[in-house]
Amino acid sequence: MKRLQETKVRKINSERNTLINVNDVHIGEGYFTVIAGPCALESEELALTTAKAVENAGAKIFRCSLFKPRTSPYTYQGFGIDGIELLKLLHAETNLLLETEVLSTDHLEALASEADILRVGSRNMDNYELLKAVGKTNKPVILKRNMSATLEEFLLAAEYILSVGNDKVILCERGIRTFENYTRNTLDILAVPALKELTHLPVIVDPSHSTGRSSLVPAASKAAMAAGADGLMIEVHPDPLKSFSDGEQSIDIPTFEKLMKDLIEIGNVLGKKSLSTVLS
Amino acid sequence: MKRLQETKVRKINSERNTLINVNDVHIGEGYFTVIAGPCALESEELALTTAKAVENAGAKIFRCSLFKPRTSPYTYQGFGIDGIELLKLLHAETNLLLETEVLSTDHLEALASEADILRVGSRNMDNYELLKAVGKTNKPVILKRNMSATLEEFLLAAEYILSVGNDKVILCERGIRTFENYTRNTLDILAVPALKELTHLPVIVDPSHSTGRSSLVPAASKAAMAAGADGLMIEVHPDPLKSFSDGEQSIDIPTFEKLMKDLIEIGNVLGKKSLSTVLS
Amino acid sequence: MKRLQETKVRKINSERNTLINVNDVHIGEGYFTVIAGPCALESEELALTTAKAVENAGAKIFRCSLFKPRTSPYTYQGFGIDGIELLKLLHAETNLLLETEVLSTDHLEALASEADILRVGSRNMDNYELLKAVGKTNKPVILKRNMSATLEEFLLAAEYILSVGNDKVILCERGIRTFENYTRNTLDILAVPALKELTHLPVIVDPSHSTGRSSLVPAASKAAMAAGADGLMIEVHPDPLKSFSDGEQSIDIPTFEKLMKDLIEIGNVLGKKSLSTVLS
Amino acid sequence: MKRLQETKVRKINSERNTLINVNDVHIGEGYFTVIAGPCALESEELALTTAKAVENAGAKIFRCSLFKPRTSPYTYQGFGIDGIELLKLLHAETNLLLETEVLSTDHLEALASEADILRVGSRNMDNYELLKAVGKTNKPVILKRNMSATLEEFLLAAEYILSVGNDKVILCERGIRTFENYTRNTLDILAVPALKELTHLPVIVDPSHSTGRSSLVPAASKAAMAAGADGLMIEVHPDPLKSFSDGEQSIDIPTFEKLMKDLIEIGNVLGKKSLSTVLS
Repeated sequence: MKRLQETKVRKINSERNTLINVNDVHIGEGYFTVIAGPCALESEELALTTAKAVENAGAKIFRCSLFKPRTSPYTYQGFGIDGIELLKLLHAETNLLLETEVLSTDHLEALASEADILRVGSRNMDNYELLKAVGKTNKPVILKRNMSATLEEFLLAAEYILSVGNDKVILCERGIRTFENYTRNTLDILAVPALKELTHLPVIVDPSHSTGRSSLVPAASKAAMAAGADGLMIEVHPDPLKSFSDGEQSIDIPTFEKLMKDLIEIGNVLGKKSLSTVLS
Repeated sequence: MKRLQETKVRKINSERNTLINVNDVHIGEGYFTVIAGPCALESEELALTTAKAVENAGAKIFRCSLFKPRTSPYTYQGFGIDGIELLKLLHAETNLLLETEVLSTDHLEALASEADILRVGSRNMDNYELLKAVGKTNKPVILKRNMSATLEEFLLAAEYILSVGNDKVILCERGIRTFENYTRNTLDILAVPALKELTHLPVIVDPSHSTGRSSLVPAASKAAMAAGADGLMIEVHPDPLKSFSDGEQSIDIPTFEKLMKDLIEIGNVLGKKSLSTVLS
Repeated sequence: MKRLQETKVRKINSERNTLINVNDVHIGEGYFTVIAGPCALESEELALTTAKAVENAGAKIFRCSLFKPRTSPYTYQGFGIDGIELLKLLHAETNLLLETEVLSTDHLEALASEADILRVGSRNMDNYELLKAVGKTNKPVILKRNMSATLEEFLLAAEYILSVGNDKVILCERGIRTFENYTRNTLDILAVPALKELTHLPVIVDPSHSTGRSSLVPAASKAAMAAGADGLMIEVHPDPLKSFSDGEQSIDIPTFEKLMKDLIEIGNVLGKKSLSTVLS
Repeated sequence: MKRLQETKVRKINSERNTLINVNDVHIGEGYFTVIAGPCALESEELALTTAKAVENAGAKIFRCSLFKPRTSPYTYQGFGIDGIELLKLLHAETNLLLETEVLSTDHLEALASEADILRVGSRNMDNYELLKAVGKTNKPVILKRNMSATLEEFLLAAEYILSVGNDKVILCERGIRTFENYTRNTLDILAVPALKELTHLPVIVDPSHSTGRSSLVPAASKAAMAAGADGLMIEVHPDPLKSFSDGEQSIDIPTFEKLMKDLIEIGNVLGKKSLSTVLS
């Protein structure tokens, strides 16, 4: 990991891990923070129903994807920039933080004005121009690992954000590409403790994209917590089979509620904070 | 998974999962069973010291590798067949079950006469002649996944054992080969719940070979339990740096003891049996 | 390949393959076209020396990378947009076509005004906003395969360009990421005939990035021609060891001259056009 | 490649490459030798028809697989050891050398008594007991690369054969496992020149298993020759669709004849011997 020398992402022995605080929601060391929401916002009703349900179950941050990068130009591409109104509504109606994916610098200003956290998706992990622009907003950034990136490359992509003065970066492991095809991707669970050795930044896991199968999401989520992750980003949809995209990997609300209960129990054993506050 | 139709390994809806009982040590549904020991037995002293320590900490089965398949013909190849005497000694001095790797049919009879459980290593997962011969001993068999095998191929390899009438097969995920090189292999943690969907056989995880780094073994072990594994096979060595092979992935005895305590706590939350009995 | 139905990239039985003509340089069916040049332009002198040498040896298109996307933010990032003046000079001093990489929409207009062919690099294969913007310039586009893209994903990325009305797309195989690490990437040579079955677009190979070792570039180049590629993009540098980037994979000018001679001989046997015209 | 130091497989600067001579059929430096035959021998008629056809077209060695290792225990497993009679018949009726796969030490003596060349398949590349036993027969051995083996591991497996005093080893690249699934495996074409840098042993390519698609076999074969391979092992079947196994990757006899003509033409340009002698 020679290229990590002299970077701001790397962990130095005596250093404390980064703890990000956004309006009193903590992400990092000692906390376990759950981000949940549908793959893409599809309608006002879907957004509100899902947001209230996940908030109720203990999620602190809502996944608000207005744009949906799709492999084919002919599949559903998301709500688009008009969805900014939806973010305002969600802020009015819930106490959730809102996070949203930025696909290009064109919409960056508008998205940064309303969202609490910006996300750079795995397809854009190597889009260095975008990384620098997102970094300059000084908003917290969730950076998803590209499906073929080594950990060193992942950290160097994060360094593009830190290099412009923004150190509020949350790393998200979301599965890598291998020959195995029962799952959509292979969740590289050991990326979590490995990143914890290499960097001071918080590390979360996306159990939905990494599995591609809703039946495996609970196991992936618990494994992520046990491996030391600081949180999860989970796709939740009230009626996954009617989802416009990625329905086969979204869990429904009762499954999410059950999972949160299990995570709270395991989190208590592991000494995680934030989650337990849900119970009180 | 078309090729799994008509196999004996596949799970049929109403079916109970296989629970293997070897001298009152249970492996499978509801239990969590820890196998531990050095990568290869190197001396009588090493074997006894390690065996007593892991038994004391709650392991039920001792890893007794007499043969060590090595990539290079010029590196340490293990104790050899004379080690059978060592197995007798371990049986006399501890209550541990003994498991050992079978590399060729030549030593099968001798090994089966003393070991409680036979192991087929990942390099031999596709050695169908060996699988059938091992199956015919009617001993329980730990089958390790080849580092490039799909889940379907892994299950079809197990089917070679079941096809000769032996259904006491324990599947072991031990990491697959990917581009990531911080870890020796990539632990495919979701193979655990995926296999649980596909087969009734017990599934354990080898956190040592899958990581190749002792510092990651505890996280990998907890993640495996949280993902639903029925047990672990962990490399433990009293002085890992002096190990003849794979020292960098073996944990020492205090680390093993601490890990067992953590696993018992998490196992209690998850309702696992056997481990809790260690405490009483 | 279900998602290729109804796309413009897919090959329909009776259809002729696309032949792209840029100022009488042909790319596609029946021709074999060589693009050569340094990894990144470093100076006026380097650019002119290399351009004249590769033109002399039979290359038709010059690789003019003004921007160099780099994994680390602290390594050489290329000449930058001022290099446009260099493109003008190269147009004045040689008969080569000029191709250049576009990293973001910010520089697109300036680059499209001077370059003959635009390139979207492998890191940006999934940058759909960029693909559409580049497509709208109506310039020929070289699209490099992402190192973890399936052929179907590669073709669907190309479809983003065709979907905005630009069908002058040249696909470039440049190596995929695997566990093998003697080479920088694994050249997926059979992507060439496989793509030829699936699409009517021209397919070229980058033997430099796929190998990462200059000693393997000649073998990779000949293999690409024998496998049916329509051309090559080769990194050539007068003094590779002094290159600011990727020197270990660039070949020097005498090696390039020798390679061109060999390709012409093999091309004659295979009935390739353009190359033989070099001899006359 | 530190582990290759002190091995017999590695190439030392001034050393000549190994040239294997079996009854005046040469394999190695300067020659290009074609092995052809059906995936598995299915009947006397199939064997004789195919053998005579491929001999006529210029093949020097016949692929005679009596055993067929199969992923599932319930698919066709090959002719079995009785097929030795078939080898005798083929020796009587043709001038072809015969090569055959050895699956276990049980049949080694019988197979070695009749076959001219023994083959260790990719599934057994790490079966070190088998490698040593095969090596001791002192017959030439074709060793196929395991689908997840690095080049260093491949060479160290070959070293097991050389370490018992047999240096007549022919390395066979047959595709590695990657995420790409249009082809059955990914032909690692650059393994050919890379191995040529690392070892003095001959290197051949199996274009059938590496592609899994008969339509890609000719392109793969020509690419292998252009990349510097010393030969090919090609699956040929008079009626591929009626083949008991792997029919989708076998080419028919007219396709083989056409391919041989193309290879002879390209081989003449590249200065290959043996092939041209077919024409005279």
